[in-house]
Amino acid sequence: MAITTLGIIGVGLIGGSLGLAAKARGAASRVIGCAPASEHETILASGAVDAVYSDWHELAMSSDIVVIAAPPVTTISLIPQVLDVSEGVVSDVCSVKEPVMGAAARASQPNRFVGAHPMTGSHQRGADAARADLFDGCTVVLTPTEATDAHSRHVIETLWMSVGATVITMSADAHDRAVARVSHGVHALAAVAASLSRDDQTALRLASTGYRDTTRIASSDPDMWAEILLLNAPAICRVLDDAADELAGLRCLLQRGNRADLRAWLSDIKAGRDAWLKGQGRDTR
Amino acid sequence: MAITTLGIIGVGLIGGSLGLAAKARGAASRVIGCAPASEHETILASGAVDAVYSDWHELAMSSDIVVIAAPPVTTISLIPQVLDVSEGVVSDVCSVKEPVMGAAARASQPNRFVGAHPMTGSHQRGADAARADLFDGCTVVLTPTEATDAHSRHVIETLWMSVGATVITMSADAHDRAVARVSHGVHALAAVAASLSRDDQTALRLASTGYRDTTRIASSDPDMWAEILLLNAPAICRVLDDAADELAGLRCLLQRGNRADLRAWLSDIKAGRDAWLKGQGRDTR
Repeated sequence: MAITTLGIIGVGLIGGSLGLAAKARGAASRVIGCAPASEHETILASGAVDAVYSDWHELAMSSDIVVIAAPPVTTISLIPQVLDVSEGVVSDVCSVKEPVMGAAARASQPNRFVGAHPMTGSHQRGADAARADLFDGCTVVLTPTEATDAHSRHVIETLWMSVGATVITMSADAHDRAVARVSHGVHALAAVAASLSRDDQTALRLASTGYRDTTRIASSDPDMWAEILLLNAPAICRVLDDAADELAGLRCLLQRGNRADLRAWLSDIKAGRDAWLKGQGRDTR
Repeated sequence: MAITTLGIIGVGLIGGSLGLAAKARGAASRVIGCAPASEHETILASGAVDAVYSDWHELAMSSDIVVIAAPPVTTISLIPQVLDVSEGVVSDVCSVKEPVMGAAARASQPNRFVGAHPMTGSHQRGADAARADLFDGCTVVLTPTEATDAHSRHVIETLWMSVGATVITMSADAHDRAVARVSHGVHALAAVAASLSRDDQTALRLASTGYRDTTRIASSDPDMWAEILLLNAPAICRVLDDAADELAGLRCLLQRGNRADLRAWLSDIKAGRDAWLKGQGRDTR
């Protein structure tokens, strides 16, 4: 099924990359975007959209698919309003799905909403960081409910597959628990890792590639991440409790000088990560 | 001062890279290595050394500088023995310096030993992962004591500068406290981050670039890291206590739903990391 017009509300890293990818792959005959006027010049220069509006109503009325690619709190407030104005399929890209699906459930026509989360990103932001290949080989999670109609689901599945992604389906709850472990909790630990030396310039002089990579995502947008962490707080708190237990266990091994158990702990963790990496078909970096 | 023969005990990632770099930059007229016979073929194929021995005595007797590039426990046991056999300057590459300097202090001629730690590496190992440019722009910490003679210190400083590194000098104690914050403690948190999903295949299906980079060093050699973490255990335990405090503070912000303070916490950490990155003159990845 060919999409006539794809409308993207919020043309930042994700929205802009979706626009670039959809145009490069011919997934839509026209891509339009909506963003604050101050961003229009950057967005048009990026080539992510054919036209950009300041008012989302205009975009929603002329699009077959509307993808809301805004920060979580904005997305949640827009979903019912966009479903009211649009006659097409509406989707999102949020990394927390229960509050998003809750917002859709409260809308007049939840059947035309399909929750989606592309598992990719960057600590960078804005349309000028957008890339046509951002979704190549990426996993996109869809979180349809009983209310979601089959046609809408198919449209969003086709959109993401056409830009190179693999689509999987989960409940919003299972998604939120999973991302708490592999994304949100990991984000929290990257921030904690960076916090250890934030006031220590002597130590920072010795920081190298391990510090750089482990803390990379601690350079992400604090506004967006404060929203994400709070929206998924219950699941993340459970994960942080596990992290605290692991830290306490490690401290105990260090204090007791227990080399065999420390080696086993490191080795077990390495085996899990190496298996994941192998499964990704990526090199061993 | 031209080095006639550089001897490297342990031709793995660091030793092999030092050999390649010293040959490429003409820092020594001859580079020889010592390693178990089973590794000789790989080492010679890497081009890191001109000749390789199985017995370090032979290497030590024919080298002007001996760099011990072995795992920490082996290095510590070798230092007094190598100082006895060699008439040249002896150095090491260990990431923990107090036990190393302690071993040198107990040797008959501690004046010819200069503790060194190149702040670089990889989660990969072996001479086949060695690179001639590994030390380009890298910081190397020297930890001389009152016993170290000026000539020995100058020789090791010159060696590292000639392969592209910036040399700084610190006490072994200051070094160990600093690396506990920017390397060893960060390593512990990368392992904890990977531990959160090690038994959760559903979650791992959603793991993406953030997980990949934050946990990269959790794929390092468990044997070597068990040694390092135990040798620097007191300093690392203090850092893990700070990490536990930060985690508990974060959990509290999440439970209370305190967006302003959460944003400030994330923003403060990002500012510190961004400033570090800017100081490195690297791009913003």
